Amino acid sequence: LNSLRAASTMRVRWALEEAGLPYRVRTVTPEERETAAYRREQPFGQMPVLHDGAVSVFESGAILLYLGERHPAVLPVDPAARTQATMWMFAALNTVEQHVTNLAELLIFHAGEAWARERRPALEAMALRRLGEVDAQLEERDYLAGPFSAADILMTTVLRPLDRIGLVDGFSRLAAYKARCMARPAFARALADYTAQYAPARAA
Amino acid sequence: LNSLRAASTMRVRWALEEAGLPYRVRTVTPEERETAAYRREQPFGQMPVLHDGAVSVFESGAILLYLGERHPAVLPVDPAARTQATMWMFAALNTVEQHVTNLAELLIFHAGEAWARERRPALEAMALRRLGEVDAQLEERDYLAGPFSAADILMTTVLRPLDRIGLVDGFSRLAAYKARCMARPAFARALADYTAQYAPARAA
Repeated sequence: LNSLRAASTMRVRWALEEAGLPYRVRTVTPEERETAAYRREQPFGQMPVLHDGAVSVFESGAILLYLGERHPAVLPVDPAARTQATMWMFAALNTVEQHVTNLAELLIFHAGEAWARERRPALEAMALRRLGEVDAQLEERDYLAGPFSAADILMTTVLRPLDRIGLVDGFSRLAAYKARCMARPAFARALADYTAQYAPARAA
Repeated sequence: LNSLRAASTMRVRWALEEAGLPYRVRTVTPEERETAAYRREQPFGQMPVLHDGAVSVFESGAILLYLGERHPAVLPVDPAARTQATMWMFAALNTVEQHVTNLAELLIFHAGEAWARERRPALEAMALRRLGEVDAQLEERDYLAGPFSAADILMTTVLRPLDRIGLVDGFSRLAAYKARCMARPAFARALADYTAQYAPARAA
């Protein structure tokens, strides 16, 4: 599931680029993620972990909240606007991502298996329902919660595993929204840096 | 999936009881949840929605964050302690819940189906792995992030759908943790109120 999990590190890179913060990336090998030392930092052995001075933060949602509380480019300062954005952060991660991930995992990793043929219609129906509900919200706005925010970083990266399946294309507002978010210079910088970092490993 | 979704409303009741806040509950029928008016409040037609004066908040995670920013019984005031708690809020909702829900849904609603027999080992392995990782964290602490917080409300309610399956019992620290959280008077009050509200509907 590496290709789906990569979404989490892209989220943090993207948020750091939006905030204009300098950062260094240290890659963690699968072996290191199983060590007791890494587990003390990240109980589930996942990536990424943010280090900011003496502070260490895991879970991409919590990292974006942490950055957003310090940088208005990631989350608005006004409390009402920030509440709107956090609602959509949790919606992206908790209401949409599970269904998108379940379907993407089935289609990408298990397409030929018998259980997948039987289960696919239900998972597809649920994912399409959620995509339609987000699409409906975008009728009169460019971003989920007023100005661009961490909510849009999360929703865009939640949708990206569906690229290979073309599922978002059926929702015109959602597809336009995703393209709008990915057209941001901060996303381009994060993606270029991410791609460059993993290019040697891919070539090897 | 009503029985799994009920977790979300329990979370908010429990947090309100921990904070000692007075509240009123209005039930929303499945029909009302499909209306345009309700969808303007809750884009996915889910429950619950919190109304606090002119503010309206959806997503149980966002509601607990909103309450926690205002009530130290729900989230600590100290920024470092609050970051610890939000890490575990996102971990409960994003790293643990998906796997618990996928397994619980399979075992409770699809146990007899062919795809479920084929898929069960993988979903069970993933859920057990996550449960073991949380269990390991509880070796030296009573709650996930220092004092009891919204993180524990979320994790406990994430684990509850597994009650019928007995899966948590295999993890002694996790089972003791869940019992410790559910022994809190605020949980008992929330559960009693919730049960009383739905008792007439069940009897009918």
